[in-house]
Amino acid sequence: MRASVHARLGDIAASIAALEARFGKQLSVALALREQHGAGISHHKPRPPDAVLFAASTEDVREAVRICARHDTPIIPYGTGTSMEGHLAALHGGVCIDLSRMTKIIAVHAEDMDAVVEPGVTREALNSFIRDTGLFFSIDPGANASIGGMTATRASGTNAVRYGTMRENVMALKVVTADGELIAIGNRAKKSSMGYDLTRLFVGSEGTLGLITEITVKLHPQPQCIASAVCAFETMKGAVDTVIQTIQLGAPPARMELLDEFSISAVNKHSKMNLKVAPTLFIEFHGSDSAVGEHARSVQEIAAENGGGDFIWSLLPEERARLWKARHESGWAAREMRPGCMNWTTDACVPISQLAENILAARADLDSGAIPGRIIGHVGDGNFHVTYLVMPDLPHELAEAERLANRVVERAIACEGTASGEHGVGYGKIPHMRREHGAGIELMRAIKQALDPRNIMNPGKILPD
Amino acid sequence: MRASVHARLGDIAASIAALEARFGKQLSVALALREQHGAGISHHKPRPPDAVLFAASTEDVREAVRICARHDTPIIPYGTGTSMEGHLAALHGGVCIDLSRMTKIIAVHAEDMDAVVEPGVTREALNSFIRDTGLFFSIDPGANASIGGMTATRASGTNAVRYGTMRENVMALKVVTADGELIAIGNRAKKSSMGYDLTRLFVGSEGTLGLITEITVKLHPQPQCIASAVCAFETMKGAVDTVIQTIQLGAPPARMELLDEFSISAVNKHSKMNLKVAPTLFIEFHGSDSAVGEHARSVQEIAAENGGGDFIWSLLPEERARLWKARHESGWAAREMRPGCMNWTTDACVPISQLAENILAARADLDSGAIPGRIIGHVGDGNFHVTYLVMPDLPHELAEAERLANRVVERAIACEGTASGEHGVGYGKIPHMRREHGAGIELMRAIKQALDPRNIMNPGKILPD
Repeated sequence: MRASVHARLGDIAASIAALEARFGKQLSVALALREQHGAGISHHKPRPPDAVLFAASTEDVREAVRICARHDTPIIPYGTGTSMEGHLAALHGGVCIDLSRMTKIIAVHAEDMDAVVEPGVTREALNSFIRDTGLFFSIDPGANASIGGMTATRASGTNAVRYGTMRENVMALKVVTADGELIAIGNRAKKSSMGYDLTRLFVGSEGTLGLITEITVKLHPQPQCIASAVCAFETMKGAVDTVIQTIQLGAPPARMELLDEFSISAVNKHSKMNLKVAPTLFIEFHGSDSAVGEHARSVQEIAAENGGGDFIWSLLPEERARLWKARHESGWAAREMRPGCMNWTTDACVPISQLAENILAARADLDSGAIPGRIIGHVGDGNFHVTYLVMPDLPHELAEAERLANRVVERAIACEGTASGEHGVGYGKIPHMRREHGAGIELMRAIKQALDPRNIMNPGKILPD
Repeated sequence: MRASVHARLGDIAASIAALEARFGKQLSVALALREQHGAGISHHKPRPPDAVLFAASTEDVREAVRICARHDTPIIPYGTGTSMEGHLAALHGGVCIDLSRMTKIIAVHAEDMDAVVEPGVTREALNSFIRDTGLFFSIDPGANASIGGMTATRASGTNAVRYGTMRENVMALKVVTADGELIAIGNRAKKSSMGYDLTRLFVGSEGTLGLITEITVKLHPQPQCIASAVCAFETMKGAVDTVIQTIQLGAPPARMELLDEFSISAVNKHSKMNLKVAPTLFIEFHGSDSAVGEHARSVQEIAAENGGGDFIWSLLPEERARLWKARHESGWAAREMRPGCMNWTTDACVPISQLAENILAARADLDSGAIPGRIIGHVGDGNFHVTYLVMPDLPHELAEAERLANRVVERAIACEGTASGEHGVGYGKIPHMRREHGAGIELMRAIKQALDPRNIMNPGKILPD
């Protein structure tokens, strides 16, 4: 057992000894494992925790939290490790509680269109499990993330424009608080006015208020008809204007994704596609056969008026799967365009009327600089990502990426948008919290202090210490 | 100036003197006005505040809060006085801040489909103002409530099944905290993962965490086609099963309202309608002409299989307006069925699979008792109201109504529903908070304590003192 060098907050060694005594082989201090658990999939510097505990049950989580609380030891929850903003970094050392073995699907209420799951259930696992019910779970970040992690970061993805984010799709939670109590939050009714909205408070709290050990999520009926289309545009502005005008029609498509020229080149290469290299929308319609037909005709008209070409349709499930797999892998694809590089990805969301200006400014920044990069986005929501392909050992490139990323965020906040549409704060976006929230930070701090007075729940995330 | 008899919390007289010095005629201590401001429109006992301040601006609110904070004086916000659960009762005396003169519509962003309003703007005033934009504000509780009040109680109404409640329709807020600070919360982007969801925390906080002085709400496109229909059923169960099966189709109608036989009799009499006296659904479809037609055919088929008669359609705006006016006035209509009575209304919301059982049990309770009553509901959401028509001076009737209402709530909570779908907690539903939330109450209490440490913001509401 090693003494932590990070033990600012408490006696981490004492916690680890007690956890080892209680949990035996469920606890590991192996370096490789700790390093993996301190990292996400972004450019943020990993920081390994002092130990990793594999929790098998809510009772495990409660006991572990009680032990850590006794010694003021930081606790960092872990799902699948696909964090984008350094959420998993053990900035003050401590114990990572890995929830990926809590994979029970506790209940599926098909008639109520909801499911109750443990936090380690991934979105794909849930969708496989419920396939025969005629329902699906809609939130799809690129990664096959855990539903616990998606709840903690208020994740969304390509379907959010139609089905909402985790904010709209989590109905109830069980959480273990900073003193190890288990609390049931929310209910399975579609609406409630019965007191403070604790569910929404914990959705997006990134492990800083408590650990999520059970989630009730909404499910949606599998649509009768699903049709995906690809449409290339003469200009980026034409593509974005098509999105804006489509959203203003009222009923959004189920997906409406923008890929810039760079992204299309990368996708063509990585996924062996043959798309025209141009600013492109990937669109998907859900509904009855006639509703999809009618809706698609409206959007095609809008696209044509904005310099869009013909829609190339994918109607068969395997074609659609290939298209969206290519979209979800576009991050990896971009990375292959510059061997040895890493992805430095930012995430902003703006009112739809401001979308064209924000995206064009980000593209102009890229075009005038020395670092290659691409823009993609869940543009139906006003959400877009700029990815800078930087060489990790070139400090001036890292600095330049940070400078450009800050400009993206500053523009977004200036037009009443947000510094993160879906990736969360972690520690990466903390520098933007004050700009975005002003004195609202003090309210957040008061809530954090009230629910975690000793600051052991994922310290250093969301709010500066 | 009179000394308060309720001055448990602080020196109310000193606050009133300071407010009078600062605000002059904006402050009133007239008994009739105070009595009106301590009452809602329900059976709950009114409790007049010690004074009423008519705020004209956010700056007025800040100054008033600071004065009251200095003397630990309770503050109760007031919109249009249409509260259902005693939210306005000055349980500990104090100052009512009437926000009904803050009626500025600050901005309408038609292209982003949102509007920024002061809290005294009513839902009808906003809808009149934006009519020419092709947009509408969707939340419609029966009363012409203020948007500030609707935010504070997380209101909903008949359209929520399709467009969501205030929870889904508030994007941003400005709030004055318990120490008189003005804080901007949220933004105008469609989604954000940038820290704790303070917007959702204040929506439904009933004035207990701060006063809302500005609200950014979502707007929705006016649908191309709106069609309303009335369908009478052989049995209540048939009507409710029609709702359940329709919801399970996926895309809900815009409205789906149940009225029992008693309600229909009352509506016929009050609104001079000639509806068949039977359990009845009022349904409204929004969409394109073809989508409405297709959707309506599906629902008609479901209704026919459940003992529903022909749909009686209202397609013209004035016919629809008459139908929904009758629905919204059904509470007054019920009251006229028993001269001298008052409405004792409860409010529960359950998972849709539990709806038939809950409604039939409530109806059976009514049928076996001595008090007349009716059941109506926003049943597409699983939300229903039982109204007991009690004689206010007959204690045994009040006790019986309370007993029956408690049974409604207990059944709802037992099946993972909620004691309030839309009316809020006020002080009327506090006795059910523990049953519904268990230890979650302690989290709520910690948040309240953190944001309002001296308990001056609408004390005695949501949480017991």
